[in-house]
Amino acid sequence: MKKEEKKDVGITVDKDEFSEWFTQLMLKADLADYTEVSGCMVFKPNAYVLWEKVISECDKKFKKLGVKNAYFPLFIPEKFLNKEKEHVKGFSPEVAWVTHAGDTKLTEKLAVRPTSETIMYPSYSKWIRSWRDLPLKINQWNNVVRWEFSHPVPFFRTREFLWNELHTVLASEKEALEEGKDILNAYKEFCEESMALYGLAGKKTEREKFAGGVASTKLHYIIPNGRVIEGPCFHYDGQNFAKAYDIKFLDKEGKEQYGYQNTYAISTRMLGTMFAIHSDEKGLILPPNMASNKIVIIPILFDDTKEKVLNESEKILKEIQEFDAFIDSRDNYKAGFKFNEWELKGIPIRIEIGPKDIEKKEVVIARRDTNEKKTIKISEIKKEVKKLLEDIQKNMFAKSKTLFESKIEKASSLEEIKKIIENKKVGIIPLCKDEKCEEILKSETGGAKAVFIAENLKVKTEKCVICKKKADYFVYCGKTY
Amino acid sequence: MKKEEKKDVGITVDKDEFSEWFTQLMLKADLADYTEVSGCMVFKPNAYVLWEKVISECDKKFKKLGVKNAYFPLFIPEKFLNKEKEHVKGFSPEVAWVTHAGDTKLTEKLAVRPTSETIMYPSYSKWIRSWRDLPLKINQWNNVVRWEFSHPVPFFRTREFLWNELHTVLASEKEALEEGKDILNAYKEFCEESMALYGLAGKKTEREKFAGGVASTKLHYIIPNGRVIEGPCFHYDGQNFAKAYDIKFLDKEGKEQYGYQNTYAISTRMLGTMFAIHSDEKGLILPPNMASNKIVIIPILFDDTKEKVLNESEKILKEIQEFDAFIDSRDNYKAGFKFNEWELKGIPIRIEIGPKDIEKKEVVIARRDTNEKKTIKISEIKKEVKKLLEDIQKNMFAKSKTLFESKIEKASSLEEIKKIIENKKVGIIPLCKDEKCEEILKSETGGAKAVFIAENLKVKTEKCVICKKKADYFVYCGKTY
Repeated sequence: MKKEEKKDVGITVDKDEFSEWFTQLMLKADLADYTEVSGCMVFKPNAYVLWEKVISECDKKFKKLGVKNAYFPLFIPEKFLNKEKEHVKGFSPEVAWVTHAGDTKLTEKLAVRPTSETIMYPSYSKWIRSWRDLPLKINQWNNVVRWEFSHPVPFFRTREFLWNELHTVLASEKEALEEGKDILNAYKEFCEESMALYGLAGKKTEREKFAGGVASTKLHYIIPNGRVIEGPCFHYDGQNFAKAYDIKFLDKEGKEQYGYQNTYAISTRMLGTMFAIHSDEKGLILPPNMASNKIVIIPILFDDTKEKVLNESEKILKEIQEFDAFIDSRDNYKAGFKFNEWELKGIPIRIEIGPKDIEKKEVVIARRDTNEKKTIKISEIKKEVKKLLEDIQKNMFAKSKTLFESKIEKASSLEEIKKIIENKKVGIIPLCKDEKCEEILKSETGGAKAVFIAENLKVKTEKCVICKKKADYFVYCGKTY
Repeated sequence: MKKEEKKDVGITVDKDEFSEWFTQLMLKADLADYTEVSGCMVFKPNAYVLWEKVISECDKKFKKLGVKNAYFPLFIPEKFLNKEKEHVKGFSPEVAWVTHAGDTKLTEKLAVRPTSETIMYPSYSKWIRSWRDLPLKINQWNNVVRWEFSHPVPFFRTREFLWNELHTVLASEKEALEEGKDILNAYKEFCEESMALYGLAGKKTEREKFAGGVASTKLHYIIPNGRVIEGPCFHYDGQNFAKAYDIKFLDKEGKEQYGYQNTYAISTRMLGTMFAIHSDEKGLILPPNMASNKIVIIPILFDDTKEKVLNESEKILKEIQEFDAFIDSRDNYKAGFKFNEWELKGIPIRIEIGPKDIEKKEVVIARRDTNEKKTIKISEIKKEVKKLLEDIQKNMFAKSKTLFESKIEKASSLEEIKKIIENKKVGIIPLCKDEKCEEILKSETGGAKAVFIAENLKVKTEKCVICKKKADYFVYCGKTY
């Protein structure tokens, strides 16, 4: 079936059939499209404008924390990539290699950046001389490539994706860890306040931490199919990279020290997370704080009252234009078709206005998140939509929190956690630090892993669900993308 | 010599020694740095913030013209690149090829985009069905790679650079050419009003036009070493790509038609152009409309009056904070050092304030473009700096126009144009359409080419400077980067 024809009929499956539902949502809400480059997709304007929102909102927060944007080369010489042993082990199986320019074979092959530590840090090493050059906080919004061989999922796992990568150097561990809290909190605020997404920060186990780092903390979200999404991340690298890339500074006492480093990122997978958590069978639902158009005005057009209704629509538009409202005055589509279309595309508020409404000095207002409709006085429209947009934003966040909590169950045995995973949920289990237990857990559960350590739960006498020895911590266990 | 030490002494050569001057400017004003990836550079925060300004200002103009941003894959399968014969011939010698992922050889090698027609147009072909889907105007701000083998010059010719690429599809040639004027004009306005750069639009000869297109028009700038810089461009592609990539639509009469296409771009080379044209031996000069910080306040600090001077500086800052002013209150550097540093970095206005100034209710204000200083009343500071910023912007544009005009000379023989090129200028010469004459011109002048056709000069009886047959047009002839 051609796309245009399909689009007209809306999403044809329940959200429970998550994979098919998500694919239809992506295609029919015009968010993305497949390409012939395996695992790479087009971010269409409807999705890209949301990514621009991620950039602008996060940048505002970063700037307050002293971060500056820059741009480093896409290509990394092989010898640079190889300097930090754990790092190269983690990334090299997925690296896309440039070997030729035109017909000429390059003398050294070049990695397409999977992440930019190894190209940025040689520059950092040159630029940093003394404590006066610290902290150094440089961020890039760019594209990276990780040629994963597992099944690609649009937005969640694509071989090329967009992200920010913020790499900082500080004079002490204390400063580094404080900065970590601040930046992770900036991400959390953005995801909560703009994306209306409830998530949980958690530290990774040794097995799951960033290749080459000391410790990793990420924000975690759970989408309706029970998958845990690893969102914005903070990697504390200690002096590991500083030693490998010779990032040294003279401290206030004139002594040479290695810098302490952090790395942070938020990627386009958060768009997928937002789409997956909020949307429904009618299509996309966008939180007002993310939507570029928050309100669509749909005039109900009849030949004899058309002008009057359009005039009144224009007046209303002026009144509420600060909410990026627009009028859909196309006369080749019926109102019902337009309702469906803008529901599919996720506009938070729809205002319907017909000749009878005008007589009563009223309009009908429909909210996308609950699909509720009500009639309001035109004279109060600005106040009403402002309040409604705030309500929608709050309600969407509350719903995402409820969803998250409904997906969590405690388990104390392998059998229990296996059932939880089968039921497309996430378990909390006691586990020991032995990486072998994590491996067994993964194979026994069909791929669920110890995603992060539960911070607020302390183990007492609990036993590891695998080896039955004393547990070291509780972990959230689930499948990820 | 280490960079830090070098920085303190400022630029050590005259601007006449352009190449060395430009390199020092780039390094000492902290605009960019070399990397070990041949031909690829770091855009440091001081330059990248200016690129962000290019993006935001051009985007505003694009949006008014119905353009939407999106993101397409970095990689292009070889078979896609090969569809438009002229296009692939133009670009394939410079393509960086990805051949492996990890240790696995790819079944089809992938081009790192040198430009994205060949990855975008297969999607356009899928998306466009009828005249209702037109015009389609999709833009990307991204990174592209062209592995040129000629000597790289930071900003002007780097193997990876940043740009926008705007690719549109329209229903008729007429609409396409009208759009062309609008977008080219948007670029021109931006370069004039924000970058304070005078340039000239001109059509390319057949030999120099875009590979695969019908006609190319670019904006041209001349930098102090006499090189012509090809700035923002507009390529009219007619139906060439539409036929190669099967971009068809049903017109209002239900007849199938191929679309008409345009392509537009502005790249990071315009930053180089702006730096090269405006700056001087003291360092960077930025037009106020581009500078992220337009004013630096430098308090003259003595132990006994420090607090008073800092307080007054804060008051002044509040008064003028809309101009992104900041105070340099570092007490480990002398005022003279700070003057030099911010001159080097190109802050348009410096305000000096010492204890004696405060007594007289005055400050000293210095403009970076002319280095003139004057004393103004503190009570009039807001009005004065506003006017001064406008003056600087205007003056810089006027100067750039004067520079451009001073570089142009008419010639009517090969001998004359050779002298003009030797003198680091640009000639206007009569030329015929024979591509062989263009080739001879290039080799005889040591690499100068027919850069663009003079629009306002019509040939009468003039002879081609090469073959002496009747000339077809006047062209601007010069060396480019």
